[in-house]
Amino acid sequence: MSSATTTATDTNPAFVLRAIKDVAFENRPIPQLRDPHDVRVHIAQTGICGSDVHYWQRGRIGDFILSSPIILGHESSGTVVDVGSSVTNLKVGDRVAIEPGVPCRRCDYCRAGDYNLCNDTIFAATPPWDGTLAKYYTVASDYCYKIPDHMDMEEAAMVEPVSVAVQICKVADVRANQTIVVFGAGPIGVLSQAVAKASGAKKVIAVDISQARLDFAKSYAADETFLPPQAEQGEDPVAHSEKTAKMIKEQFGLGEGADVVLECTGAEPCIQAGINVARKGGTYVQAGMGKENVVFPITTACIRALTIKGSIRYSVGCYPNAVHLVATGKVDVKRLITNRFKFEEAEKAFELVKAAQEGVFKVVIEGVQ
Amino acid sequence: MSSATTTATDTNPAFVLRAIKDVAFENRPIPQLRDPHDVRVHIAQTGICGSDVHYWQRGRIGDFILSSPIILGHESSGTVVDVGSSVTNLKVGDRVAIEPGVPCRRCDYCRAGDYNLCNDTIFAATPPWDGTLAKYYTVASDYCYKIPDHMDMEEAAMVEPVSVAVQICKVADVRANQTIVVFGAGPIGVLSQAVAKASGAKKVIAVDISQARLDFAKSYAADETFLPPQAEQGEDPVAHSEKTAKMIKEQFGLGEGADVVLECTGAEPCIQAGINVARKGGTYVQAGMGKENVVFPITTACIRALTIKGSIRYSVGCYPNAVHLVATGKVDVKRLITNRFKFEEAEKAFELVKAAQEGVFKVVIEGVQ
Amino acid sequence: MSSATTTATDTNPAFVLRAIKDVAFENRPIPQLRDPHDVRVHIAQTGICGSDVHYWQRGRIGDFILSSPIILGHESSGTVVDVGSSVTNLKVGDRVAIEPGVPCRRCDYCRAGDYNLCNDTIFAATPPWDGTLAKYYTVASDYCYKIPDHMDMEEAAMVEPVSVAVQICKVADVRANQTIVVFGAGPIGVLSQAVAKASGAKKVIAVDISQARLDFAKSYAADETFLPPQAEQGEDPVAHSEKTAKMIKEQFGLGEGADVVLECTGAEPCIQAGINVARKGGTYVQAGMGKENVVFPITTACIRALTIKGSIRYSVGCYPNAVHLVATGKVDVKRLITNRFKFEEAEKAFELVKAAQEGVFKVVIEGVQ
Amino acid sequence: MSSATTTATDTNPAFVLRAIKDVAFENRPIPQLRDPHDVRVHIAQTGICGSDVHYWQRGRIGDFILSSPIILGHESSGTVVDVGSSVTNLKVGDRVAIEPGVPCRRCDYCRAGDYNLCNDTIFAATPPWDGTLAKYYTVASDYCYKIPDHMDMEEAAMVEPVSVAVQICKVADVRANQTIVVFGAGPIGVLSQAVAKASGAKKVIAVDISQARLDFAKSYAADETFLPPQAEQGEDPVAHSEKTAKMIKEQFGLGEGADVVLECTGAEPCIQAGINVARKGGTYVQAGMGKENVVFPITTACIRALTIKGSIRYSVGCYPNAVHLVATGKVDVKRLITNRFKFEEAEKAFELVKAAQEGVFKVVIEGVQ
Repeated sequence: MSSATTTATDTNPAFVLRAIKDVAFENRPIPQLRDPHDVRVHIAQTGICGSDVHYWQRGRIGDFILSSPIILGHESSGTVVDVGSSVTNLKVGDRVAIEPGVPCRRCDYCRAGDYNLCNDTIFAATPPWDGTLAKYYTVASDYCYKIPDHMDMEEAAMVEPVSVAVQICKVADVRANQTIVVFGAGPIGVLSQAVAKASGAKKVIAVDISQARLDFAKSYAADETFLPPQAEQGEDPVAHSEKTAKMIKEQFGLGEGADVVLECTGAEPCIQAGINVARKGGTYVQAGMGKENVVFPITTACIRALTIKGSIRYSVGCYPNAVHLVATGKVDVKRLITNRFKFEEAEKAFELVKAAQEGVFKVVIEGVQ
Repeated sequence: MSSATTTATDTNPAFVLRAIKDVAFENRPIPQLRDPHDVRVHIAQTGICGSDVHYWQRGRIGDFILSSPIILGHESSGTVVDVGSSVTNLKVGDRVAIEPGVPCRRCDYCRAGDYNLCNDTIFAATPPWDGTLAKYYTVASDYCYKIPDHMDMEEAAMVEPVSVAVQICKVADVRANQTIVVFGAGPIGVLSQAVAKASGAKKVIAVDISQARLDFAKSYAADETFLPPQAEQGEDPVAHSEKTAKMIKEQFGLGEGADVVLECTGAEPCIQAGINVARKGGTYVQAGMGKENVVFPITTACIRALTIKGSIRYSVGCYPNAVHLVATGKVDVKRLITNRFKFEEAEKAFELVKAAQEGVFKVVIEGVQ
Repeated sequence: MSSATTTATDTNPAFVLRAIKDVAFENRPIPQLRDPHDVRVHIAQTGICGSDVHYWQRGRIGDFILSSPIILGHESSGTVVDVGSSVTNLKVGDRVAIEPGVPCRRCDYCRAGDYNLCNDTIFAATPPWDGTLAKYYTVASDYCYKIPDHMDMEEAAMVEPVSVAVQICKVADVRANQTIVVFGAGPIGVLSQAVAKASGAKKVIAVDISQARLDFAKSYAADETFLPPQAEQGEDPVAHSEKTAKMIKEQFGLGEGADVVLECTGAEPCIQAGINVARKGGTYVQAGMGKENVVFPITTACIRALTIKGSIRYSVGCYPNAVHLVATGKVDVKRLITNRFKFEEAEKAFELVKAAQEGVFKVVIEGVQ
Repeated sequence: MSSATTTATDTNPAFVLRAIKDVAFENRPIPQLRDPHDVRVHIAQTGICGSDVHYWQRGRIGDFILSSPIILGHESSGTVVDVGSSVTNLKVGDRVAIEPGVPCRRCDYCRAGDYNLCNDTIFAATPPWDGTLAKYYTVASDYCYKIPDHMDMEEAAMVEPVSVAVQICKVADVRANQTIVVFGAGPIGVLSQAVAKASGAKKVIAVDISQARLDFAKSYAADETFLPPQAEQGEDPVAHSEKTAKMIKEQFGLGEGADVVLECTGAEPCIQAGINVARKGGTYVQAGMGKENVVFPITTACIRALTIKGSIRYSVGCYPNAVHLVATGKVDVKRLITNRFKFEEAEKAFELVKAAQEGVFKVVIEGVQ
């Protein structure tokens, strides 16, 4: 291994989820390079995501169940401090955005280019794998992306949610000159709106139940916004969703409907309205996650010949494209960061995200010097 | 108009749906060529489809509502008896399969090649348009497909349901060497199985709740069959569907799941099981229609990055391909025809289809000489 | 037919190509509506294209051979003055961009959505069909696109070459964040560069042998420009093209090569360099036309697994998208118009285009009042 | 490493290319597992390919240049004799077909699923990498495919050329009901014809200059065959190719042309005829390799909006699909094997392939016991 810039006396302070609702700072061993293609990164900034809070509060997401302590955090940037002997794309001192999931490279999904579907991915802060909220994180070099000098470490940490939005738009096959309705104006929603605009979308319409979030979306990337009416007492929920869809189509002159619908909330009424707002032959992407099962207008999906797709994580090209979008200012991530914390305030940061206040958008935690 | 072989004294006996549950034979005017590209066909054979019975019994399907009498029937073959002056692909005496929907040719869907989505399609026996259960039917010449001499008129009538199956497989993007699970072993189900096999499918698994239909499917085109267990008293329906999916995967060694799922029943448990039986990144096509809304495993669809598509009617190439499949014997439609009726027995034929006995598969009605 | 705003005494001054190098002004009959879906347009502005000049000078392009006089011109805008009884998308007084080719709507290409491949297209100013350089032109209403109030008639005429560029980018499947090399900085070249940028291209590199054109391209939409070196005395042309490709890759840090190459010149050295500048698995689109046959690096195309496609005319969505791009200013067509002529100066305008001076970009001819 | 069934005293007899036209048997060290995912295979059968002979006679193919001795051979089957500690898909004693190229798994091509484009692939018998004509070969376990009991080792060795044909049809996006013209009736040509038929092709037309090969093709998988006429004295070669294309279209009623053309010869006249025989909007795949550069009808490719693609090696799914096609008898590879040799006769086998007699199709060499 080359040029080690860490010494035996170095330690690795880490923010650890020990059990449900039980976090603590621990001093962990510095993660060694396990492969000559690995690099060790000194973490600079880490964004907090809803899934981090979910593990903290509930200890599981789907089949991923916390059974032993893990370091939290997966939206990180940092500086390379050690490189394996086979690393050619990076050198010590390079500033990078870290893609948090490294797949097995050997299963059919990996070999087919669908590495986001790999069952053996080592994904930061997904049990049983440690995350990035520590001084150091070791990762495969091809999952680290060098950032240009003018990008700062906060921006580099934000490459993660931008990549999620890039994948959503990739799954949706978003093209120039399309009309796109995005349900949700939270971080992933507004980033999807921004990525769609950067892909040449003709018109992007943001839908959310928070007027404040819609105001932000309008100032950010959306061309139009829509606040759905509340269902009336005793109104059939499905009929209400159909009415919402009709209102969106009429208000924005969508005619048959939108070319593309990106559902970034996971909320049942949004899913129902989303299917109804897509034009015949249009595309609907499910990116948000809420209830496991929902009442779903399957006959509409059939008759209208929709293409409905699920988007999960990111695939090849998403991180480089996200770095480019941030670096060129096509997507301005600084505006999304509303709260900043020191590493030692990590729990406070998590509490803030958990509180889900309207004014809190993205929260970042500065790494250990 | 060229070579009229019908005379002023000819009449056009027709089987007419006057109102819900009210059919009658009427003598209608011979339909004239409305366009120099039209042909008039002397109808030879007509298959009966569930939708014909649906209009008869309920007077509507979705937004198509019976408000004045229409001639029934849309799965027909016949002989060309008159051709417009601009017709070049057909001549009097040609034996043809008739594609029953002629789109507007001018809307964006038509111009984009998605003519099955055209809102202004003239579709036989879909209100307010007359169908083909008459002596004569007039239609655009490019929606008539000449059949080879060795194909008989029953086979030519059956090209319609084969085309539906061809479209389902086209929407599913069925490829050689895929593993395909088909829910439903009725006419569209077994034809989809046959078309999938003719497309080089590695393994086709038929699922149905009728063992007799499964037996037929196995003898027809399916490699394997599966009879789902009934839910136990008080069992959660969604959990039951998941269990069914798991059983299918295990019994047939599907591992992660099927490459493609074709849902040809519209039944809620099949839809739920179907989503769960598809592999990550797999394709699920909704072709059957039942309840408007169903409880749907949307999170599974999202996490597993499925592509879910609706299939409706047929599009360019389906009819020619279906003619080829029938003509070459790759799809043997004669075996599907269980009951034959004379034109004057049309109501009896409809009654039989309505009764939905297990032994009744496809029913055809011979045209007026 | 509704609301005729032209009278029997109206005439239809037209600029006619009588034979090779023989043009004249004639007074032609006003073209009547041939179909209830037709509209008649009072032509406002017409751009001149290389193909117009080609017919004038040589009387043929490929299989299209001038055998009787035709009216020239096909890049036109105007005002609707008469609408057929079935027209619903337009009314008298609407200002429109005219798509000059109306396909048969009945062949397999049309039905499949590839109407640009229809063999029976009526294409303005392509023998034997009359063009638009007259007071009036009659055309199918779905091939006229209403323009917004703030777009002027020159811009609307320029929608035609913009649509050509939209089709080129559509054929190339241009996506956001791609690196794109465009050979040619003439009108179609710079418009392709602009459309690629409007589609979110990461980097667009213009290649041309005219520094002045490259300077314009740089000021217009290209991120980078490249002036290829001239081959040295006795240098092998193919080796020279490979060297050019290598220089482009090195100068702009393309590594393996460009994601997409758009060849808008038809020049043999550009074709050869273009194939060599595409990355493995990349896409190369042939849009320019020059020699019928060229020396072509077929083994490179094979080993590098390129996708090579031809682009011709425009297909569904190109015109609406082009109108949108012009209307929103994403593509600024006014800057391309270097010379303007009155209708009666049409021959002078043609002479100017024929002279092919570096400073002459797009030439437009004002219609008859 | 688990269960070693080879001992220190074992040796590894190998057929080595020492320099151009200089082969010899050597006793090489047994190749050790380099990675816990590796397996060692006792080679059973090896087919000889034109590229093996090419290296032997010329020492290079493109940029791959023989600079030190390599073991020859890359079309092999065998039995697993050692498995690394991380191997889960195979066990000692499994009979396998070996995919001869293992990519780096880390470059953008690998991560995107295009591993056949990886620049760092270790490909058997491609300098500087050793091939499979030895007693033992060590390779990554995911590039070994278990064969069913009823498949023999010759069939398993032939999975390699079948995979090449599967990739060609995959690149061509061959679909059921297409009309396909295949240039070349050598091993790759006839296998491409067979794979196309197994994918449901409507009509496959084989073109070759050897009547004997065409006769075989007809008896194997082709529906039709065509022997192109020789060019007459002084006839323009391009015009001759156009004439050939026209003859093919007329003789087989292709109308506008074939949906798909697979060029498996690399011969200039075939390339030219192939481009001309594709229908508008059709697909042409270059799979054969001959001259680096050819005279190419680029304007035809442009105007006819062709999609032209290069096919190289194989990608994910090709080997499993090829195993399936052979195992089910959909592709009968035994009929292709015309000559069999013992390991110690390897040079004789190579001499026979080099002689390129019409009656010699596939030559296989049995491994060392």
